[in-house]
Amino acid sequence: MELTGYGRATPARLDATFAALADPTRRAILARLASGEASVSELAEPFAMSQPAISKHLKVLERAGLISRGRDAQRRPCRLEARPLQAATEWLDEYRRFWEESFQRLDTLLDELKAEEKKPGRKKR
Amino acid sequence: MELTGYGRATPARLDATFAALADPTRRAILARLASGEASVSELAEPFAMSQPAISKHLKVLERAGLISRGRDAQRRPCRLEARPLQAATEWLDEYRRFWEESFQRLDTLLDELKAEEKKPGRKKR
Repeated sequence: MELTGYGRATPARLDATFAALADPTRRAILARLASGEASVSELAEPFAMSQPAISKHLKVLERAGLISRGRDAQRRPCRLEARPLQAATEWLDEYRRFWEESFQRLDTLLDELKAEEKKPGRKKR
Repeated sequence: MELTGYGRATPARLDATFAALADPTRRAILARLASGEASVSELAEPFAMSQPAISKHLKVLERAGLISRGRDAQRRPCRLEARPLQAATEWLDEYRRFWEESFQRLDTLLDELKAEEKKPGRKKR
């Protein structure tokens, strides 16, 4: 078991993670692997893509540490590795307060509009 | 105020967000803007980068909707826009259980090791 890497990711690691996630097929592959291991041919099926095309995407994901490949020589099943996703989420979490604040402002505005609407003498015409 | 876009991001939006985040300078620019608006020259300063180089990064961030530029013609201050970061976090949140499960497994293992350590007759030599 690997005990390192529980802290912050290096900038190069984050670069590789975000670059790997910047593609809809690669995100779909990760979503598929979230429900269990799959071989390249199993992954290629739903995407109507050739196995070489899928293999290219898998290499990007593997280099980013987002998947690992099994040792079974024939099948080499792919497996999701969530650690880099965690590091990416930790980076993004620093910004959470920004959208939470904008939701708060929106809620306040909506409350004000509702209060205005309910004022006597302002019935709908 | 823009009320659309509170739901899921389109795949193309997520592509642009993750691609924009796959660069350490662009992430550092966002981190700087998290503490307030800044002009291009203010942003260029700490990075020891030319203004044209910073401007290129700002264009990528702006196209991804991660920053907006003010209307002041001279300064055109840059401002953080957190909405795309929220969408990216929502995508990543789907995978949260994976790393939480692996932490859980690690905790269990550590507890077992500690229990083993405390067993009578297994004192440190």
